Parts: sequence; C-alpha cells; structure tokens
Amino acid sequence: MSKKVRRIGVMTSGGDSPGMNAAIRAVVRTCAYYHTECVGFYRGYQGMINNEYVPLNARSVRNIINQGGTILQSARSKQFMTEEGRSRAAENLKKAEVDAMILIGGDGTFRGGLALSQEHDIPVIGVPGTIDNDINGTHYAIGYDTALNTVVEAIDKIRDTASSHNRLFFVEVMGRDAGFIALNSGIGAGAEEILIPEEDLGVERLLDSLERSRRAGKTSSIVVVSEGDKTGKNVFELADYVKKNLPYYDARVTVLGHIQRGGRPTCFDRVLASRLSVKAVELLLDGKKNLMVGMMNNEIESCSLDQALKGKHNINKDLLRISEILST
Amino acid sequence: MSKKVRRIGVMTSGGDSPGMNAAIRAVVRTCAYYHTECVGFYRGYQGMINNEYVPLNARSVRNIINQGGTILQSARSKQFMTEEGRSRAAENLKKAEVDAMILIGGDGTFRGGLALSQEHDIPVIGVPGTIDNDINGTHYAIGYDTALNTVVEAIDKIRDTASSHNRLFFVEVMGRDAGFIALNSGIGAGAEEILIPEEDLGVERLLDSLERSRRAGKTSSIVVVSEGDKTGKNVFELADYVKKNLPYYDARVTVLGHIQRGGRPTCFDRVLASRLSVKAVELLLDGKKNLMVGMMNNEIESCSLDQALKGKHNINKDLLRISEILST
Amino acid sequence: MSKKVRRIGVMTSGGDSPGMNAAIRAVVRTCAYYHTECVGFYRGYQGMINNEYVPLNARSVRNIINQGGTILQSARSKQFMTEEGRSRAAENLKKAEVDAMILIGGDGTFRGGLALSQEHDIPVIGVPGTIDNDINGTHYAIGYDTALNTVVEAIDKIRDTASSHNRLFFVEVMGRDAGFIALNSGIGAGAEEILIPEEDLGVERLLDSLERSRRAGKTSSIVVVSEGDKTGKNVFELADYVKKNLPYYDARVTVLGHIQRGGRPTCFDRVLASRLSVKAVELLLDGKKNLMVGMMNNEIESCSLDQALKGKHNINKDLLRISEILST
Amino acid sequence: MSKKVRRIGVMTSGGDSPGMNAAIRAVVRTCAYYHTECVGFYRGYQGMINNEYVPLNARSVRNIINQGGTILQSARSKQFMTEEGRSRAAENLKKAEVDAMILIGGDGTFRGGLALSQEHDIPVIGVPGTIDNDINGTHYAIGYDTALNTVVEAIDKIRDTASSHNRLFFVEVMGRDAGFIALNSGIGAGAEEILIPEEDLGVERLLDSLERSRRAGKTSSIVVVSEGDKTGKNVFELADYVKKNLPYYDARVTVLGHIQRGGRPTCFDRVLASRLSVKAVELLLDGKKNLMVGMMNNEIESCSLDQALKGKHNINKDLLRISEILST
Repeated sequence: MSKKVRRIGVMTSGGDSPGMNAAIRAVVRTCAYYHTECVGFYRGYQGMINNEYVPLNARSVRNIINQGGTILQSARSKQFMTEEGRSRAAENLKKAEVDAMILIGGDGTFRGGLALSQEHDIPVIGVPGTIDNDINGTHYAIGYDTALNTVVEAIDKIRDTASSHNRLFFVEVMGRDAGFIALNSGIGAGAEEILIPEEDLGVERLLDSLERSRRAGKTSSIVVVSEGDKTGKNVFELADYVKKNLPYYDARVTVLGHIQRGGRPTCFDRVLASRLSVKAVELLLDGKKNLMVGMMNNEIESCSLDQALKGKHNINKDLLRISEILST
Repeated sequence: MSKKVRRIGVMTSGGDSPGMNAAIRAVVRTCAYYHTECVGFYRGYQGMINNEYVPLNARSVRNIINQGGTILQSARSKQFMTEEGRSRAAENLKKAEVDAMILIGGDGTFRGGLALSQEHDIPVIGVPGTIDNDINGTHYAIGYDTALNTVVEAIDKIRDTASSHNRLFFVEVMGRDAGFIALNSGIGAGAEEILIPEEDLGVERLLDSLERSRRAGKTSSIVVVSEGDKTGKNVFELADYVKKNLPYYDARVTVLGHIQRGGRPTCFDRVLASRLSVKAVELLLDGKKNLMVGMMNNEIESCSLDQALKGKHNINKDLLRISEILST
Repeated sequence: MSKKVRRIGVMTSGGDSPGMNAAIRAVVRTCAYYHTECVGFYRGYQGMINNEYVPLNARSVRNIINQGGTILQSARSKQFMTEEGRSRAAENLKKAEVDAMILIGGDGTFRGGLALSQEHDIPVIGVPGTIDNDINGTHYAIGYDTALNTVVEAIDKIRDTASSHNRLFFVEVMGRDAGFIALNSGIGAGAEEILIPEEDLGVERLLDSLERSRRAGKTSSIVVVSEGDKTGKNVFELADYVKKNLPYYDARVTVLGHIQRGGRPTCFDRVLASRLSVKAVELLLDGKKNLMVGMMNNEIESCSLDQALKGKHNINKDLLRISEILST
Repeated sequence: MSKKVRRIGVMTSGGDSPGMNAAIRAVVRTCAYYHTECVGFYRGYQGMINNEYVPLNARSVRNIINQGGTILQSARSKQFMTEEGRSRAAENLKKAEVDAMILIGGDGTFRGGLALSQEHDIPVIGVPGTIDNDINGTHYAIGYDTALNTVVEAIDKIRDTASSHNRLFFVEVMGRDAGFIALNSGIGAGAEEILIPEEDLGVERLLDSLERSRRAGKTSSIVVVSEGDKTGKNVFELADYVKKNLPYYDARVTVLGHIQRGGRPTCFDRVLASRLSVKAVELLLDGKKNLMVGMMNNEIESCSLDQALKGKHNINKDLLRISEILST
C-alpha cells in the first residue's frame, strides 16, 4: 500500500509555456483545499538537485493565473540525466519530506520523472505543458491554445502589410517535430499554404500553387512554415527559391521566434491548467502514481507515463484537406 | 432522391458572434472548390423575405476571416415566424434558384430553418454560432471561445483596480439561460465566486463565502454573475445586499454588455468555423438535409436539427467543484 | 537651505491608473542610481497615517513596468483630510526618517500633499497619474493613453455588433468633469456623436444629427457619452429618449465602467511614467519642493503644486470641430 | 492666384504604417464635408502613372478607421523617379481633373511630391506616415505609436520566457537610420540595454554592462537593437560575441520584423491621422501648397515640404540618460 501523501512538490521543466503559472496556482490551492502541504522547486530538476525550494500557500500564488512564464522558473538539467543526479534529487526530496511530485512540462520532463520514480520509488504525476502540443494522451497541452493565438495575431499584422504591398510572406512558426501550431494557426490566419513536418508536399507543389494563386488574381499570400518542415530548405532558402522561380513575387520572411512562448494565457489554457492540476493532486492523494493527466474528448483523464511517452500525438489529417479547400 | 444542389445560400441570423465571418468565408470557398454557386442573404430570414441577396465568390470573402460581426448582417425576423413570411421566403429562394440553405446561428435560427424545410422542402444545414454555447449537439459553438477571452481580459483589467483598492467587484456576463460563459470565464479569471442559472447557491452562501475570504485575509474579490442567475436579485441588488450585510466590503458593479459579442475571433473559433462550414457544404452536396454540424470530442459530426433543438447542452458540473477548490 | 534628502518615500493615492507601477519602479530605480534610500507607503495617505511602509530596492520593482494597478495599492483617506490625520502622518514620516515624498495621483492627492508640506515642512513632488487627464500643468497624465486605448478597443468590439444589427449604441465612458476620454476615444473609434461635460449640445441637436445620419443611409451608430455630460439625462434616459423620438433606431446602452482603470499600460504611459518619475526624484535631490512634474510640449517640466491645483486643463476645442467634420 | 480646388486626389506611398486608413478616411470625409470631390490612387505614384484610381465617398471609407495597412495599397515606384514617369502621372492627373494631391507617406514620398509639384505645378500636401518617426517637422508620424506598442507587447512576451529561463535576449526592431522605435520601446519594455544608430556605445560597453548586471544578481536581460545600430555587428553576431565573452549567458535572438508594420492603430494614431488629414484638406481648399502637416507640441502645424526634407528629426538624447538610470 502506498504511503500517505502529506507534502507535495511541484515544478516546471523544459521549455516554458503560457498557463504554467495557472497550473502551479491550481496545484497549490488544491493542496490547501485538502490540507496538504506544498513546496515548489525552482528551475525544474536542477532545483531538486540543488535543493532549492520554497513552501507555497494560497497567498504565494495570488494574481499569477494570468501571467505568462513560470514563477518557479524552468530549465533543462543535464545533471539529472545521470543516475547520480537523480540520486541526489531523490535524497533532497526525502530530506525535505516531499512525498510525491507534480511535474509540469513535456516529454523530456516526463522521461526524467519516470526514471526518478522507478529508481527511487517517488510517486510522480505529469501535467502536460508545451506549446508544441505533441504529447500523447491529451488532446491539448497547456500553452498550445495561447501560442496559436499569438501566432494568428502576428500573422494578422503581417497580412495587413502583405495586402498593402502585394507581397508573399513566409512565416516560420515553432514546431520542430510536430505541425500542430503551423496547421491550426495557418488555417486560423487564412494562410495560402502550410508546410509541416508530417507531410512533405515538395517545393514544386508550392510553386505550382503560388503560380495558380497569382493567375487567379491573388496578389498577396502567406505561407506558414513549421521549423521542422520536410522540404529540406529552411525558410530563407524557401523564399529565395520562390523568388528565383517566380520572380513577380516580392517574397519576405518573418521568423516569429520566442514571442510564441510568452504572453498571458488564454481562457482555454487557464481552465485547462486548472482542471488538469486539480486532478493531478487528487490522484496523488488517492494513492495513484506515474500517470499523466490529460484532456481527452473534453474530459479530464489520465494514462500511464509510459503510455504518454511511447505513443505519438498525431495531427488531424483532415485539417490538411480543410486547408487546401479554403485556400481556393 | 434529392435534387442536385447547384446553388447554395448562406445567412447569419440571431445574435451575432465572432467567427461568423470565418464561417461565411468557408462556406463560400468550399462552394468554389466544388464548383457550386453561392449567394448570401442579408439580415437572416428578413433578407430572404425581402429578397435581398448577393452572389459570393472567393474574392468577396477576402480578409474577413479575422473580422468580428458578420458581413451579411443579422437580425431577428418576426415576419418569418408566420407561415406567410416563410412562404414568401421560400418563393424568393425558388426564384433565385437557391437549392439549399446554410443557416449560421443559434436555436431560434434552427427552429425557423426546420419550419422552412418542412413546409417548403428546402434542404437546410445549421452551423452553430452563439457566444452562449447552449446548443445541443456541439461541444463548442462559434464565438464562444472568443467571448470567454473577451470576458477574461476584461476581468483581468478589473482585478488590477480591485487589488489596488481592496474592492469587491460584481461582474455581470452574458448568459440568460446558460452559465457557460460565467463558469469558464470565472475559473479563467480566478473569480472567488460564480453565480450561474443552472445552480442556485443562494445569497446566504455568498455572504458566508465572502466573510470567510475576508477572515482569510483576502482583501479584494471578483464575483462573476450570469445574466440569468437564480438568486432572484440582479447584479446591482446583489451588490447592495452585500454592502448592507458585509459593510467592510466596498462593492462595485460592472456589466460587461455587448463588448462580449464583438472582437476578432480567436484561432479556435476561426478553425472551428472553418471546419464546421466545410462539412456543412459537403453534407448538402452529398444530398443530406436538416442536420446541424457540430464538434463533438474534437471531431466534426452532425445530428438532426430536431435533436439539436430537443436536447439541452448542459454545463460540466465538475467545473463548479473546480471553482470551489480553487477559490480556497 | 533645505536639508539633504537621504530617504525618499513614494505612494499612490486616489483612483488608480495604468502606469502607476512604471512610475513607482522609476522612482525606486532613480533613488538607487543616486544612492538614496526609498520606502513605499501602502494605500496612499492612509498608509502614512497607519505607518505601513516597506523599503524598496531595484529588485522589489522587477517585472512590474507592464502591470496595471499599483503594487503599493491606493485609497482615498478621510482621516488625512483632518489636521490631526496629517499630523500623525508627518510624525510617522519623521520617525521613519523619510525626508521627502513623491505623490503619484490626481488633484485630490496633490491638495493633501500641499497641506502636508505647508503644515509640516515636508518637501513633496507630485507625479500626475489619472485616466481623466484633467490636471493642469501636464498635457498627459499617466494612465490616460492606456484608458483611451481600452475604450477604443471596446468600442471597436461594440461596432462589430452594431454594424451587424443596424443598431445605435450609447457608450458611457469615464470623465465626471472632463471630456478628454470621451472626445479622443470618440474620434479614435469613429463615433457619430460625442457628448462631453464641457459643451452642452442639447438633446435636440442629437436627434437632428441621428435623423440626418439615417437619411444619409447610415444604419448603425455609436454615441460616446461622458459620465458628466450636460444634457441632464443619464445614458439610459438618453437612449430611451431617442427610442421614443426616433423609433426606427434600436438603441442600446453599454457602460464601460472600471475596465477603463486597469490593463497593461501602453508604451506611451510607461515612458511618460518613467520620465516624470526620474525628474521627480532629481528635483527632490536638487533641493526643490512642492512642485508637480508634467509633460508640456513633449518635454518634462515642472510647475508649483499651487499652480497645478488652481488652473484647469482644458480640452482642445478644435477636436470638437474635427469630430463634427468626420462624422459627416 | 491659385486655381480653385474642386477635386482632390489621395494616395499612400512607401512602407505602410498603421493609421494610414484612418488618414484616408479623414481626407475623404473632410472633402465630403466641404463638398469637394475625392479620388484615391492605388499603389502610390505607380497608380498615378498607370491611371488607376477610384472615386471615394463617405461610404467607401466606412469601418476602416481601425484597420491596419492601407485600402489604397502602397508601393515604391522606380518609374516615378524619372522625369518621364512624373510627366505621365501629371498628365493622368489632368485628365482625371484632379486639382491637388494629398500624399501620405515618408520622406521618399515627399521628395517625389515636391518634384511633381515643381515640374508640373500640381499643389501637394504631405501627411507624415511612417513607423520610423524620422520625419522633420512633426513630433509624431502616423503609425509610430502603434509600432511602439506592438514592439513593447512582443518584448513583454519575450520577457516572460527570458525570466523563466534566465536568458539574455537580443531583440532587433525596425529603424535603419533612426533609433526612435528602439529607444522608446526599450524604455517602455524595461530593456537593460538599447543600441541605436545615433550613438555608438561600443560592444565593450555592452559587455561591461551585462557583466555588472550579472554581478548584481540579474539573471535575465533584454537588449533592444535597432536595425541600423552602429556596433558594426548585426544582431546575430552581437549575440555570438556576447556568448563567447560572457559564456554564463544563454543568449538568444529575436528579429521582430514585419509585425511592426501592421495591426490595428492605437487611439493616438487614429486621432493623429484624423487631425493631420483634416488640416491637409483645409490647407488645399485654402489655396496652400507644397506643405507638410505635422504635430508640433500637441498642435497641428504645417511647414514647407522643403523644410521637412532638409532637416532631421533627432531623438531626444535625454531618453538615453533615462534608459541608463532605469536599467540600474
């Protein structure tokens, strides 16, 4: 039988995403509601190794639900990838009388958590937070909806100037391995073409499509490109290639970059973060461990961390079809 | 066997919601993609009665995906509630050679459409667009996500001044019969209390909770109130009642009003509107009729208009629990 | 000769306005730059009376430049309006070894500061912060530019729904005694009519103008109304009056309320707050007192508090003319 | 004596800026108010050469006051730089019975206008619209205030992630020859360092300052860099140089790019555009020519185009001092 959980630790790890603070707040308040202590570790696993933590109560998380970033800060810890690092972290947890951990982050975070749990028998629950949305076991990860809106607002602005100048814009968005951001923001922004890692449409198809657009009288265009697209060209090379082959296009490039990680979380991300985190605390208090909470079909569910790490969250291929129809 | 659909009409009816333009755009472009003609009727059923319509092509809907409101305008038509009104509308549709209609709106819109279809054998497909989100057969109606964000951003602003002045704010949000906006925006904005039509918590419970908050050292608070809440007091009476019973609270009222209907649609609403509308056109071209398209469990589905009108889309009661835990 | 200033106190008083935090930050950092101590009093004069203050250093004001509200909170203190209250405040200042005060607020704040200074010989400098912008001696008060943008964004949203439904909207904005917000936001939002305290155009003129608009084919309209307009009718009575006399108008009312006080400050307000506050500290260190800093003709200037309180900051009448021309 | 002006042409030229539509609207409505005809030329001087224009009335400019970009589109015309090009444009103006032109743009636009006026005796008035704000004769050009807010909002987002990860971010903003955007947005965003074309602080000074920051315990930093900064290194080289010399810094780069040109204009830019454009029309109707309108010391003034082109709008050096004090 598992030991009663009296003190829960929480941390954020990996790339930060908007809504992580809403998640921390919900963990802390749910602990308070169930008269359970809560401490926060700084900078993810590194803070566990360095024994940097702080007790958290309802007041510590006042007015953070709408703040981007994470008050606990985040990091990627190389030391934690070693057995020695994890042992040190586990020791510190024991000294701090932390009975279980809630880990907010992406798959790197969960992989670390699983190792910690298996090697040192520390119950952990993962809460998926990543703008890339590429985690199996949840339809939505915290921060993804906010990132989509940040991207769409940025492309709205770019379209103003694209339309005014008859220009073709290549906009690079985040997503090294997954096209979630590109595909959804591209449809939302009314992009003429969308290039994602999951599907190589080929550069020639892009030329054909732009040529067709121009013949149909379209004078400005937006092409959304995932960081990890499969054309074999980066976004600047793509623009050059198009300029060379379709010289009537005045092609420009914008790389949206790190603005995609920040900003006030949307209502969706705040509610999602709140619901997932309440569930995470309740699972621990219920004696469960090594699970990831997720939102599947509008309900909060959980799956084993194993399963979350093994599977792959695939994009909805129907969206590619939608994109093609709408860029008519 | 149903007649081949060669020309599709589209209109928006009832209260407008952000994303209706994205829906119109998607209807028009999907028609173009399938080489089907498309016309738009102005001001909902009234435009059908007055025979006010315009041919729409891909260019007519350029750069509207991110605009609030509806380029076809909207209205509530009393005339259409009479058989005579509907006959006149049907006649005009026949003269205009419109084979089928896509109706973007809420349940009033769908009720009208069902009558039209039954009395005059005109295939119709409903696309749910209403910030209230109270339509059965879809987890999300177009405009709801945008309205949530508008409300949350407004309450963020109010919280700035509430915190600075130790004030208690009552914020009235839309939702005469349904608490979707209040409940989700309340959780998203970190409201201390949420009053919705679906559940009468009673005024005394509110007093208790505020008293408890004050004792816990909370000096400012936000109470989100649905238009249709069940306390039997409107938001101004509520504030007065609290002031009389808890005189240490400096209670203020803000009625958010019509700003909730406008604004640029979020990415979510644009993608939702696009997906629903592509499906609506494809259903008509496929010989289907009298259905409503909806998003259930992240997939685009359809149900009969009958079913959409008979059932009720209930709020997720678990959110009430979440709200209570988090306002600890 | 004035005593050397070694420790400066800062506080915010009266209605809060966006940018007050940027002002506090700049006071604190300028003190640090000049190796001068700084303490912050909570809740304006009330904190001085209650002796509630906190030492502030560069780190205390980290990441607040973009936050609405005021970390020092604000209040209106009745006790400070008595000689006894002010004596107590002065005593506390002396005990705390505060040599001079920087007062961020509006004319009520400055009146109190002048009394404190005259009765107890405490050097004070006023920094104008009020969304109403009605302070003499500065073209811009901190928070005004942000409030204008909040109002204009709200009216943009209302116009979406006004246009979609052919409606007439009356939008009440803040400004009990001054029409700055109404006049500038009205022009910025393209309002058809603007009613301000400084000029009574009369209700009949409004009817004439709306009637003319309708005849010219305008089907939706926005009328911006200052809280303190001079028609003798409040905004709801105005709407009723118009509905009775021009029944073809579907008139609605929105009272924007307290959202106007909150929100992230604009770049203009952040830079303004920064410049004014650096100057305020430098004046005190330079042995000056009982002045208000202000921005006149794009330069930072100062005038005596007396002058700031005696004069009146008038609206630019030419804007009324502009408004009339543009609502053609 | 100058010929009576019966028909006014308007166009936008050069890089677009938010608020140009508000300016077009004000030109058109002021013409309507004074019973003067108005036509709009597309794509700046190129449209004059190609004889592409459209009559504009109050309805043509409905609901554009809040739209980014320009409905008349913009371009840079090489042909117009030749005498032949200008002759053709002048001929077309005469055929179209356009008596005078209003030119919305930057100094390239005004240079072209002056040549046209001198060679072909066509009265022109310039309206300054450029986000760079580097036009002599006006304290503010249309679009500059909006661009500042776009930049500050983007840096707010970047700071979220910078703070969460202890990172140093280099943010490149527009301004090839002028540091207005960098200097004001840098102060508004609380940047630790600001590099502008007007002042070469040297790379070594940047290293010193960052080293000092780190010693003072600052763990994340923002450096705002103008496109045209004078270090001799571009923003990527700067980041590399810092990484090499201060290896404890995890330096990243974001190039904000074209999002700075788009977006809904702020209230300030809408009012500015409205006031400048009313004045421009009134000057033409008053028989004036070859002037630029501008806002000097909060009042609308005018100066000769010559003067606007000869002088230089200098940044306020005091802001550099402010920036240094506040990054303490």
